[in-house]
Amino acid sequence: MSSRKKSTSRVRIDRFAGGRGANRDDVVAVEEPLEIRLELAAGDGVRERSVSVTMRTPGADFELAAGFLFTEGILADRSDIADLRYCQHVTPQEYNIVTVRLSDPDAFDPALLTRNFYTTSSCGVCGKASLEAVEVRGCEPLPAGELRVPRDVIQQIPDALREAQPVFERTGGLHAAALFDSSGEITTLREDVGRHNAVDKVIGHELLGGRVPIVDRLLAVSGRTSFEIMQKALAAGISMVVAVGAPSSLAVDLATQFNMTLVGFAKAEGFNLYAGAGRIEDLGPTGGRGARE
Amino acid sequence: MSSRKKSTSRVRIDRFAGGRGANRDDVVAVEEPLEIRLELAAGDGVRERSVSVTMRTPGADFELAAGFLFTEGILADRSDIADLRYCQHVTPQEYNIVTVRLSDPDAFDPALLTRNFYTTSSCGVCGKASLEAVEVRGCEPLPAGELRVPRDVIQQIPDALREAQPVFERTGGLHAAALFDSSGEITTLREDVGRHNAVDKVIGHELLGGRVPIVDRLLAVSGRTSFEIMQKALAAGISMVVAVGAPSSLAVDLATQFNMTLVGFAKAEGFNLYAGAGRIEDLGPTGGRGARE
Repeated sequence: MSSRKKSTSRVRIDRFAGGRGANRDDVVAVEEPLEIRLELAAGDGVRERSVSVTMRTPGADFELAAGFLFTEGILADRSDIADLRYCQHVTPQEYNIVTVRLSDPDAFDPALLTRNFYTTSSCGVCGKASLEAVEVRGCEPLPAGELRVPRDVIQQIPDALREAQPVFERTGGLHAAALFDSSGEITTLREDVGRHNAVDKVIGHELLGGRVPIVDRLLAVSGRTSFEIMQKALAAGISMVVAVGAPSSLAVDLATQFNMTLVGFAKAEGFNLYAGAGRIEDLGPTGGRGARE
Repeated sequence: MSSRKKSTSRVRIDRFAGGRGANRDDVVAVEEPLEIRLELAAGDGVRERSVSVTMRTPGADFELAAGFLFTEGILADRSDIADLRYCQHVTPQEYNIVTVRLSDPDAFDPALLTRNFYTTSSCGVCGKASLEAVEVRGCEPLPAGELRVPRDVIQQIPDALREAQPVFERTGGLHAAALFDSSGEITTLREDVGRHNAVDKVIGHELLGGRVPIVDRLLAVSGRTSFEIMQKALAAGISMVVAVGAPSSLAVDLATQFNMTLVGFAKAEGFNLYAGAGRIEDLGPTGGRGARE
């Protein structure tokens, strides 16, 4: 819907295997910069301000812009956005600049653009300060909520995620992020060369559709979980994150502190539970820990 | 050498596999912010200016700071750095702020801190502009140079990289970057939750040791190659990048435009060559293309 560019590109390569070489066509994931701009109030009019340049795979650019501004705490709600459009002032049009027009430019606080998640004035910069900064921003621990997911659904997620990706993406060129309901159905899936972008696209899609906070679905990611992925999920009210890869220490800390469920190394045979056992059903007698000691 | 913090952290998890659950200790990669500051001239004295906050795995923090400033084009040479130290003004000391003191603060141009690699004034923001910005910065196509690597050495790299990582890191919690010589020996290896950080640590180690440009070794990475990884390698004069994962379109474009050798999907059985066949020996009759058409 919101992209005029291709997400894959054809290249000519030499493939060497089994003692032989062959010159052939291959396909790679496209990586191009996307600049996100906000139209801010300026005197009696408006002016555009560049907020971020991210290297992304074209596709779902409006969702990426909306998701980024929301998960970074720059916009609070769908209603803050009047519309999104590709920049009109560039020739040739490369579809690499998205301008977000605000519903009420006069009400926007530009100080939100210079805030970041890693530092607070109290204690410099550290993991603890990063978590405090998420609190200062207004994120609170999530309630137990309504989401309950059977253990076998968790174990089906990696295969379901892989099967839902087109053949090319299965080869490892793109990160995937998807929302699953408690029966294991995928409701939204997006891909990108940047794992944080894939998550922003998914959340942006829900935001633009008026479905945030996302209380009834879990977020699955094809790679690892970091602080950044977890704080984006938290911002969207997502209480469970299931990853095919490993979590970082700060991802575990954030999940624990904000009462989220965090699964890592998800496979058909099993998984590791790092926090929030209460939202997974059929865990058996040893369940119920999964928190940092 | 330059870290006072642990790179792994113990967590208590629930492990579910084969129908059973077990509560046990596990280890995750530490992720914490590192703030990099420069001491700039201010009137008769100096003042510290924050340049970047990156989420990193503690370890080789001075190398990371030096490598980042160099590969981003903020510092041009080892001799620009008088010394590096952890911030003295923070209590409790968290070892998360590195201050770089310049040899000649008066000679430093602060405009270097606001430049970026993704845009040029000529054409807004696009892949082509990203490549032009690398040129504007002063990077030129690399000469054919002295590095020649036999094909079988390329195919040994993934196993050598994996074996050189401690057991924990092999489980997938950390990205690795390493320099190999043409006989397949690893001369430098660093790890991080962020793949760009692992590369900056490797290059920072060489920079601080006075061994940049790096003309006689290749850079191997455990993951994918992006524009960012390739421009960091180029900045350090590294003419060959071998990745276990896939390249992006812009990684291929950068390699082609700057006469670098780019290998992807490296395995014991074979690899894909995207650009720069001339630096690999024993390719056989079909070698010699490997460039975007």
